Amino acid sequence: MKPMAPSSIDLTTGRIDLTHGAGGRSMAELITDLFQRALANEWLAQGNDQALVAVPPGRLAISTDSHVVSPLFFPGGDIGRLAVNGTINDLAMSGARPLYLAAAFILEEGLPLADLARIVEGMASAARAARVAIVTGDTKVVERGKGDGVFITTTGIGVVPEGIAISGDCAQPGDQILINGPVGDHGVAILAQREHLGFESEVCSDSAALHDLVAAMIAAVPQIHCLRDPTRGGLATTLNELARQSGVGMRVFEEAIPLRPAVAAACELLGLDPYYLANEGKLVAICPPDAAETLLAVMRAHPLGTESAIIGEVIADPQCFVSLRTRLGGERLLDWLAGEPLPRIC
Amino acid sequence: MKPMAPSSIDLTTGRIDLTHGAGGRSMAELITDLFQRALANEWLAQGNDQALVAVPPGRLAISTDSHVVSPLFFPGGDIGRLAVNGTINDLAMSGARPLYLAAAFILEEGLPLADLARIVEGMASAARAARVAIVTGDTKVVERGKGDGVFITTTGIGVVPEGIAISGDCAQPGDQILINGPVGDHGVAILAQREHLGFESEVCSDSAALHDLVAAMIAAVPQIHCLRDPTRGGLATTLNELARQSGVGMRVFEEAIPLRPAVAAACELLGLDPYYLANEGKLVAICPPDAAETLLAVMRAHPLGTESAIIGEVIADPQCFVSLRTRLGGERLLDWLAGEPLPRIC
Ligand SMILES: Nc1ncnc2c1ncn2[C@@H]1O[C@H](COP(=O)(O)OP(=O)(O)OP(=O)(O)O)[C@@H](O)[C@H]1O
Ligand SMILES: Nc1ncnc2c1ncn2[C@@H]1O[C@H](COP(=O)(O)OP(=O)(O)OP(=O)(O)O)[C@@H](O)[C@H]1O
Ligand SMILES: [Mg+2]
Ligand SMILES: [Mg+2]
Ligand SMILES: [Mg+2]
Ligand SMILES: [Mg+2]
Ligand SMILES: [Mg+2]
Ligand SMILES: [Mg+2]
Repeated sequence: MKPMAPSSIDLTTGRIDLTHGAGGRSMAELITDLFQRALANEWLAQGNDQALVAVPPGRLAISTDSHVVSPLFFPGGDIGRLAVNGTINDLAMSGARPLYLAAAFILEEGLPLADLARIVEGMASAARAARVAIVTGDTKVVERGKGDGVFITTTGIGVVPEGIAISGDCAQPGDQILINGPVGDHGVAILAQREHLGFESEVCSDSAALHDLVAAMIAAVPQIHCLRDPTRGGLATTLNELARQSGVGMRVFEEAIPLRPAVAAACELLGLDPYYLANEGKLVAICPPDAAETLLAVMRAHPLGTESAIIGEVIADPQCFVSLRTRLGGERLLDWLAGEPLPRIC
Repeated sequence: MKPMAPSSIDLTTGRIDLTHGAGGRSMAELITDLFQRALANEWLAQGNDQALVAVPPGRLAISTDSHVVSPLFFPGGDIGRLAVNGTINDLAMSGARPLYLAAAFILEEGLPLADLARIVEGMASAARAARVAIVTGDTKVVERGKGDGVFITTTGIGVVPEGIAISGDCAQPGDQILINGPVGDHGVAILAQREHLGFESEVCSDSAALHDLVAAMIAAVPQIHCLRDPTRGGLATTLNELARQSGVGMRVFEEAIPLRPAVAAACELLGLDPYYLANEGKLVAICPPDAAETLLAVMRAHPLGTESAIIGEVIADPQCFVSLRTRLGGERLLDWLAGEPLPRIC
């Protein structure tokens, strides 16, 4: 391909302006100099309107998420890493091996190009680490005050191994409920960054790609019934979603649910319930009772699951209630998240 | 699945608030009452984090576009139809048969639910007409002043028939250049809606899904070299992209390029060049010279190509210039779009 004339993109001091989304020369320069360079792969290099990819035979998983997190950078990650890991995780929750991602950017006029470059580098490194390729993209620019820095929508495809049938409607009474570590880290990490909350903490986002952990889990326990990442709405809402889909109830045990002291302290201070805080590197797994100990051992053996725990069980309940057995032996309803404690969390 | 308690969603007078993006009960209600109802299909009904789809064997095409058009409704379409057709078209430009779409929504607090419902209905009807299914989605909400009503990112996958190898780098000197109808309609339709331009016209957007037209074209002329939809940047920029990718030059003829009188008049009035205006239902095709008449006949026989024309030819030129032979016999350079005549056009 013929190289363009010398580019006008200044990744150090430049800012996004409307020409970067107009479809003309300066958009082409931005794509060549920044996106294609950082995300470098054969598909992007082609520069066609679509990427042509090879997929092994099998059922294909597809998932999409827009990311609008504020602030763009936070302890433990940034919007770019979140966007890559988030979509990988939604694919992985079917047992799929993630293969390819598409990334669409909505940039606000005035965004420093240095911030954008940092975000795209983060995406590139997260994609490399996860062995997925970002094969196609899009770049739009909105006027100042019509966006918020950058929104990123990632969509992914992956292939589900034969013999795996994981779905939110497969939970059965007697099944055990597991989680791969402490809840609420991501929510508290974001909260702590919002200056007006006058609150600081050392908690980092748990943002991570879970597909390797899932691969180990299904290799050991192919009969896993459900997997879901408790993102917005937190553990409590995810359990309610699964309970509703499967037409069952659930009971979880407060003392069994991993929780960092720093997160517990932040929740205490701010009057928040950790079970409703978002996570970006956690999964809930539901499996037959006789497989639970095997599954737990496999999860604990993985770097992203060292603090895994069995947190509760599925019960028969036509009302599909989720309840929490407290440390003191009481029982309270863990309802769906209502209201809006934490907007723009992911 | 157990139905939720009575829903709080009022699609007539309600507005989007932050709870609709918080991941809890009211987001679930919005998804159930609006998105799943309008887009109804087996995958969405499942409610998992991803959709599992079957794809026939073959190479897979994947493409993504964010849509940020302003205004949201315009003559000939709306942001929802544009989002469905736009991604279908980018898939079709590889010769692929589009199969499945993902749709991610970034909603601004305060958006009337009636507007959102109208947009989603438009998407549903465009998807039905194109025989594609919107199988998975996402819903985020940003605070008032951090978005602009609604942004929609659609990502699609499709399957490329065997024996088809269409790519922007395949144009060869001697090839003929075709288009399926008049240029600039979409750009003028949007412009005319921007009140501050104090300008009215009867021009409608050409927004359309081109995959059926493409299927007819490749059935008749499987050796098509290039296909591209001249969206942002218009015909001129698309030709430059293809010229650069293929390392060739191009010459097009002013008198051969279809143009509606109303679009010509609007361009005259506003000092715009129609070759840089966006189209949303046009394609440029490049094919070997001996196939051009066959291709033209097939295009003209299709409802979306009745005004098709051969508009120029590919020439050898290491500089990759695109030139326009004017009606008066002069020749001028048709460069890449520079600057920003029309922000937020798609
Ligand atoms: N942010 C990005 N990251 C990586 N690749 C990108 C990005 N933006 C665009 N691209 C790539 O650049 C090329 C041109 O993208 P562009 O969006 O102009 O194509 P299009 O979708 O056909 O046009 P339009 O968006 O106007 O409909 C494509 O190959 C696309 O995958
Ligand atoms: N606008 C929409 N249109 C159609 N389906 C949607 C829409 N928004 C969400 N969905 C569907 O609703 C379900 C829940 O979506 P949700 O975004 O909560 O899942 P998630 O991506 O796992 O969570 P998060 O977005 O917090 O990471 C999924 O099946 C998703 O496909
Ligand atoms: Mg998600
Ligand atoms: Mg999820
Ligand atoms: Mg695009
Ligand atoms: Mg496009
Ligand atoms: Mg295109
Ligand atoms: Mg989502």
